[in-house]
Amino acid sequence: MHDFRSDNVAGAAPEVMTALATASTGQAAPYGNDALTARVTERLSAIFETQVAVFPVATGTAANALALSALAPPFGAIYCHEEAHITVDECGAPEFFTGGAKLVPLPGAHGKLTPDTVARAVARAGVGVVHKVQPSALSLTQATEAGTVYRPDEVEALVEVAHAGGMAVHMDGARFANAVARLGCAPAALTWKAGVDVLTLGGTKGGCLAAEAVVFFNPAMAEDFGYARKRGGHLVSKTRFLSAQLDAWLADELWLRLSGHANTMADRLAAGLGKLPGVVLEYPVEANELFVRLPESTIAALEAAGFGFYRWDDGLVRLVTAFDTPATSVDAFLKIASGT
Amino acid sequence: MHDFRSDNVAGAAPEVMTALATASTGQAAPYGNDALTARVTERLSAIFETQVAVFPVATGTAANALALSALAPPFGAIYCHEEAHITVDECGAPEFFTGGAKLVPLPGAHGKLTPDTVARAVARAGVGVVHKVQPSALSLTQATEAGTVYRPDEVEALVEVAHAGGMAVHMDGARFANAVARLGCAPAALTWKAGVDVLTLGGTKGGCLAAEAVVFFNPAMAEDFGYARKRGGHLVSKTRFLSAQLDAWLADELWLRLSGHANTMADRLAAGLGKLPGVVLEYPVEANELFVRLPESTIAALEAAGFGFYRWDDGLVRLVTAFDTPATSVDAFLKIASGT
Amino acid sequence: MHDFRSDNVAGAAPEVMTALATASTGQAAPYGNDALTARVTERLSAIFETQVAVFPVATGTAANALALSALAPPFGAIYCHEEAHITVDECGAPEFFTGGAKLVPLPGAHGKLTPDTVARAVARAGVGVVHKVQPSALSLTQATEAGTVYRPDEVEALVEVAHAGGMAVHMDGARFANAVARLGCAPAALTWKAGVDVLTLGGTKGGCLAAEAVVFFNPAMAEDFGYARKRGGHLVSKTRFLSAQLDAWLADELWLRLSGHANTMADRLAAGLGKLPGVVLEYPVEANELFVRLPESTIAALEAAGFGFYRWDDGLVRLVTAFDTPATSVDAFLKIASGT
Amino acid sequence: MHDFRSDNVAGAAPEVMTALATASTGQAAPYGNDALTARVTERLSAIFETQVAVFPVATGTAANALALSALAPPFGAIYCHEEAHITVDECGAPEFFTGGAKLVPLPGAHGKLTPDTVARAVARAGVGVVHKVQPSALSLTQATEAGTVYRPDEVEALVEVAHAGGMAVHMDGARFANAVARLGCAPAALTWKAGVDVLTLGGTKGGCLAAEAVVFFNPAMAEDFGYARKRGGHLVSKTRFLSAQLDAWLADELWLRLSGHANTMADRLAAGLGKLPGVVLEYPVEANELFVRLPESTIAALEAAGFGFYRWDDGLVRLVTAFDTPATSVDAFLKIASGT
Repeated sequence: MHDFRSDNVAGAAPEVMTALATASTGQAAPYGNDALTARVTERLSAIFETQVAVFPVATGTAANALALSALAPPFGAIYCHEEAHITVDECGAPEFFTGGAKLVPLPGAHGKLTPDTVARAVARAGVGVVHKVQPSALSLTQATEAGTVYRPDEVEALVEVAHAGGMAVHMDGARFANAVARLGCAPAALTWKAGVDVLTLGGTKGGCLAAEAVVFFNPAMAEDFGYARKRGGHLVSKTRFLSAQLDAWLADELWLRLSGHANTMADRLAAGLGKLPGVVLEYPVEANELFVRLPESTIAALEAAGFGFYRWDDGLVRLVTAFDTPATSVDAFLKIASGT
Repeated sequence: MHDFRSDNVAGAAPEVMTALATASTGQAAPYGNDALTARVTERLSAIFETQVAVFPVATGTAANALALSALAPPFGAIYCHEEAHITVDECGAPEFFTGGAKLVPLPGAHGKLTPDTVARAVARAGVGVVHKVQPSALSLTQATEAGTVYRPDEVEALVEVAHAGGMAVHMDGARFANAVARLGCAPAALTWKAGVDVLTLGGTKGGCLAAEAVVFFNPAMAEDFGYARKRGGHLVSKTRFLSAQLDAWLADELWLRLSGHANTMADRLAAGLGKLPGVVLEYPVEANELFVRLPESTIAALEAAGFGFYRWDDGLVRLVTAFDTPATSVDAFLKIASGT
Repeated sequence: MHDFRSDNVAGAAPEVMTALATASTGQAAPYGNDALTARVTERLSAIFETQVAVFPVATGTAANALALSALAPPFGAIYCHEEAHITVDECGAPEFFTGGAKLVPLPGAHGKLTPDTVARAVARAGVGVVHKVQPSALSLTQATEAGTVYRPDEVEALVEVAHAGGMAVHMDGARFANAVARLGCAPAALTWKAGVDVLTLGGTKGGCLAAEAVVFFNPAMAEDFGYARKRGGHLVSKTRFLSAQLDAWLADELWLRLSGHANTMADRLAAGLGKLPGVVLEYPVEANELFVRLPESTIAALEAAGFGFYRWDDGLVRLVTAFDTPATSVDAFLKIASGT
Repeated sequence: MHDFRSDNVAGAAPEVMTALATASTGQAAPYGNDALTARVTERLSAIFETQVAVFPVATGTAANALALSALAPPFGAIYCHEEAHITVDECGAPEFFTGGAKLVPLPGAHGKLTPDTVARAVARAGVGVVHKVQPSALSLTQATEAGTVYRPDEVEALVEVAHAGGMAVHMDGARFANAVARLGCAPAALTWKAGVDVLTLGGTKGGCLAAEAVVFFNPAMAEDFGYARKRGGHLVSKTRFLSAQLDAWLADELWLRLSGHANTMADRLAAGLGKLPGVVLEYPVEANELFVRLPESTIAALEAAGFGFYRWDDGLVRLVTAFDTPATSVDAFLKIASGT
């Protein structure tokens, strides 16, 4: 039975595997001085319609923590949603890479922050007061941990508050592809045109084996990033193997097609579940994650049938679809859920 | 023309690529809770003839720095050869991961430390004196940065001094495979039977894309390692893709055949160069690296011919062979070097 | 006019100054190997009725952060009240000294945590889950930031939850003297007999110039503390000058008399203010701090008269008394406040 | 018998104690917002003939480590003499405060670095190479650990090399007063006029109880220093008590008179010992430290007589004089040493 626990239980997209095999022969300069890595930067510059500085790494935790370390000093405060992966699920990686900056979790409905919440937090922060950690970065998760998506104008409004408070803006884009695929907008509109300073663009959940890109829209901010990445053990010697994945994934909008499929499967799940009595979708389904309240008997039946998913809370389960989730698996799940 | 700059300009072994492709379909538990990762631990336990705790990571820098962080507190001193990669080429990664421990570089002929040198350093260290960083770890590089190899009894003698001084022993095995292939001894004899506590076993240079294993011979020392790895951004979500590489590389002694080939190519280079007038091999060639003094005219001719290698020092060049170095490339190099 | 902003605007008690002058002549072994430092340990062992390990330092921030670094690893979580000094007012010092542990702020009425709140937090923490920071320490502030005081049984109940969750317990005792003076109980009953593992005992606010003591009730926990203190720059070379302060302050219960006076002055303020119309004491006054809601006109009148105090929030002011606050200053303040 | 082990076995100068007592009454703003702290900045600006930014702290370790953290990023290299206190005697404090920068010890006769040595080290450093820690700071010790003194032109030549290599220059002035007193030159000539960026000016060894000043000649470099100091636990709440010491010590050239006396006593020792057969002064005596080779029988006789000093090495002893060393103690020592 299908495992809906996370999009990281999926394998790799065939196109990515093929590219990797192609890249595996012959000699190439190490540490990112290869042609594939250069091409990834070109592709991302084209996709984002501006010259970007790109640093491939192997994990999202590294991408986020390193990006934040470029924005926040050790005495900095990093604001994020209280459910953000960076504060909940990375065992303190941002604290480690920043040299001990403080993550300040903020509440927000549907996994989203609002400008007011951020503004109030900064107003209380004690800017310039030596006893207080100093507002340095705002981190937005796109798509959010609740499976919702910020619109460009929402990002823009949050950035405005952040920049006014002297903070740089980081976007945790582990599922950025799903957000773009959903909104159908230009990647630039969701990021630098709305003021985002650095994006961690996740390829792993979207069809790569292990490949993320830290994308700086203002290359000047990346001045010391190479040292931080090396020092963190995240400069892969045969970087071509990270870049080959990203290159294939970004080519011909494969990244959007793959994440679009995941979104469609989430919609299919949502549509099917939404019809069932006693079933409540906790949040709007805007990416590839669903949080659903199900009767305990339904949950038990699904578990008994061998489906994988997380019990998030009493009666609340999380379902995640992926680039390779078969519609048949969704339908099989819905069949059990409907008790038919 | 062939690039002899490093073994990290090589691609990946076909067996490894095939295993990766096989692993790329289907669902698997993330974060190392998959069957391939379990099999890697089994394989390494068999290879080392003892139950080991294994942590795959993507880079050698991470493997070394994380391993050292398990051995040395922030106020610790880590002794190593003055040419050791950990102190010369990792941009301070060990300092970062240990929270600021001090690497103490020690001299030694042919890239090797001697028990006397280590003993004298520990005697001067001020054990128990609060003003002094405390001897915590000895790090040995096997094969060494000079392309030489410690014999089991040499390791044992060094470990004895280290343990007597209250230090744990780390082996940087980025080229451990080359050392084992050269010596033809049991991996256990070079490691835990000689007292080594933790090995970072390098797969990348030996034919993997990006895969290293931190191997604890005393699993109790690894108690907190999982947290450190996660926090360092080195827990790969789709860990099966690291493990698939290591699994294939370790199967049927592929790792030793591949590194054995690299060694043979180094020998072939050494034999050919050794015959030339005015050419001096700086160190015994015991793994897959050569340090050779060549007349400037020869160096220039090789460069003009398009061969890649590092000028290490005045008149000294470094040549590195890899698992896939063709004999024809070696011979072509020798032909130019001999001026015939 | 008197400054009620904090007890750190006070000077030093004459007895402490005299002791310092006496200690200032002659030679003494540095770094705490002097007779006065030994005597401080003896005094504290007697006061706490158990053999303690004592480390004098110059600031409360250092005392707290160093103590916490002995209890929590870099991947640890430290639970504390959301208003605790360690998380609100130390610019991330605990994060710095622990290597990036995470402070988890918890709510609680009157500045106090309850066992339930702590238990729920630990239950949600994900013990043993590698993605989560691990519960490592509970930090209690005694007297609290709200000027309230934990009773021995309250401490005991909190410690029980903490120890059951695998956490050590730290007590931030910047105003521990005020708590003891108020409760009239044995210092042991408020600390190790209730299970507290380490206390940072504040002398500075209580009449010293700059002297705090980190007191380990389980000396085994202090094994590496000397290195951490040195490395943090907190081993004072002429330690006798810290110890002379503490020695005089602890002798003949001076510390309790001084803090008792501060408490009495707080009571006098509370009694006087409590009688006024429109005045509300936000919390019970149990130490030397008052949080009082006053009419804006009263606040303005007090400011105009030159009294110092903090506007904490809309209509809420904080008043702090000290070991040397004159009753006449309290009365002058009350006179203005009463508008008579 | 007199203890010549270090100048930190001395007490405090009476003028300093008197100032402290005077400062001990009345209320004063905390955290350095007091009149005495302002006066210290004024005094130092006058003494150094330029507007300086001053941060008092309680220990030399803190002063050095904090100053270095303002100059070197975590991926930085800090060059210093191989005997420098910062690398030998501070248990890794600079590594801690910088977030893991690497101290690179360099050799040099008489405890002094030469421009050539520094230039060669920087040339080998790999500037801009991501695998290498980056030259960030040069730290000079004045007076040196060998009791010698850099002349203004020597400092200038070293600074020139450092600045050319992109490094800032720190001066560890734990015994800066002794150097100035010896050379009789303007403090400015030894520091900013020669290009030094930041000085840690030691008051403790020179007659204070515990007071050091971090002096930035370029206040822009100190922008984040306040946060780093707070976070390190080195912002003393009653800062007036640090400043009172420094204020008295700096007034009316007391600091130079006190260190001048220490120097004179060192000269007296040197002169007396120099006359004895078999006695060799290891280094020129230019401050208040002597390194002397003595016959073992002489050493034993001095120890038997109860004099304190360190055996530095076989037959080599270190003697340190202080601001309060009596000439009679020197003469008593010489009497035993001469065997008369």
